[in-house]
Amino acid sequence: MRYAILGTGMVGRTIAAKLAALGHEVVIGTRDPQTTLARTEADAMGTPPFARWQQDHPGIALATFADAAARADIVVNATSGAGALPALEAAGADNLNGKVLLDIANPLDFSRGMPPVLDPVNTDSLGEEIQRVFPDLRVVKTLNTMNCLLMVDPARVPGEHNVFVSGNDTDAKKAATELLVSFGWPEKDIIDLGDITTARGTEMLLPIWLRLWGALGHADFNFHIAGARTGS
Amino acid sequence: MRYAILGTGMVGRTIAAKLAALGHEVVIGTRDPQTTLARTEADAMGTPPFARWQQDHPGIALATFADAAARADIVVNATSGAGALPALEAAGADNLNGKVLLDIANPLDFSRGMPPVLDPVNTDSLGEEIQRVFPDLRVVKTLNTMNCLLMVDPARVPGEHNVFVSGNDTDAKKAATELLVSFGWPEKDIIDLGDITTARGTEMLLPIWLRLWGALGHADFNFHIAGARTGS
Repeated sequence: MRYAILGTGMVGRTIAAKLAALGHEVVIGTRDPQTTLARTEADAMGTPPFARWQQDHPGIALATFADAAARADIVVNATSGAGALPALEAAGADNLNGKVLLDIANPLDFSRGMPPVLDPVNTDSLGEEIQRVFPDLRVVKTLNTMNCLLMVDPARVPGEHNVFVSGNDTDAKKAATELLVSFGWPEKDIIDLGDITTARGTEMLLPIWLRLWGALGHADFNFHIAGARTGS
Repeated sequence: MRYAILGTGMVGRTIAAKLAALGHEVVIGTRDPQTTLARTEADAMGTPPFARWQQDHPGIALATFADAAARADIVVNATSGAGALPALEAAGADNLNGKVLLDIANPLDFSRGMPPVLDPVNTDSLGEEIQRVFPDLRVVKTLNTMNCLLMVDPARVPGEHNVFVSGNDTDAKKAATELLVSFGWPEKDIIDLGDITTARGTEMLLPIWLRLWGALGHADFNFHIAGARTGS
């Protein structure tokens, strides 16, 4: 499969590296590849410059959002939440329509200080917003409820724990589920919550996730729905 | 201990019955006891009238919010979210100040249809709102992340799963923890998230809880933080 990963941060790099290791063709999309490659300093989060990371992942190309999306079968939104719609607009509806979009981002708003709040929230979600703006994109919200290292290596956290999928398109959720299984997620631990409006529920896990990160002092934890008694 | 339970619905009755079974003195508070006792029909949720329930629990008194709170060592807010502040105002700051309040309610707003949304949310929570309005009340948010039957009988859901506590007062959280242990919660499964602002995180679990209830078709499930590696 050919994947486009929108976003050059830690989350996008982690997903891209895993997909490449699984034998997929991966292109990372960014606004301006020359600017991204010209950076030589770590960013505010301490993430090393992209060019240095790419030296260790020579098979992964960098392209504009539009070029990355045009070549892909499946697109992954790994932007910061606020960057999602601008990135998708730059990718262009013509390059996106009919494709599966895995939306793994959260609409975190850091403008009011720490901890961040969500925007949109409660009566809307980033997943729904993307689906509304791009009605012909087959949006599946998933993987947004955990640290990125865990997304591609669920065994980092011992015992049973869950990943959620939300979306309107059954075939797109099936494609997402197959990808999750290839990442190491047991099918019984993948919970289909329903249509894309259920993305509100998973995005609204972020506030307690952030507080648990603080209380526990590490990010190697995940939500497990005890008593779920279903793998669907 | 003497407990006042504010709220005559299923949640209040379930907590009251458990506390009475554990040997505590329990008074349920309501706006107007005569009106509550005069009801002969089940409510919109199918909850049987209070007077019928009380026949099976003759040791549990019904009183006004103020009378119930005045006699109590610990007060439990088991109202509907929107009813919480009016109930506490009716109870009166003089009857509440210095006491521990276990806030087990969620600010569900059904006015926009189903599923309900939260109000307040994101930048505020019901727990914080109560703490702000009653600064001398020692508010602990807990038990609001599960079905009421599970609150008092954690073994209903097999395996490990968690209950959270949020609050500014360490001694009040200790009292809440002791009560939870007496309900059957192993101390290692009680997670202290931090101050009362962390109530946002647990209240914001409600949207996914409601969707899981729909997807799973039953309410005997609970959140478990896999990999938490702490009992604090």
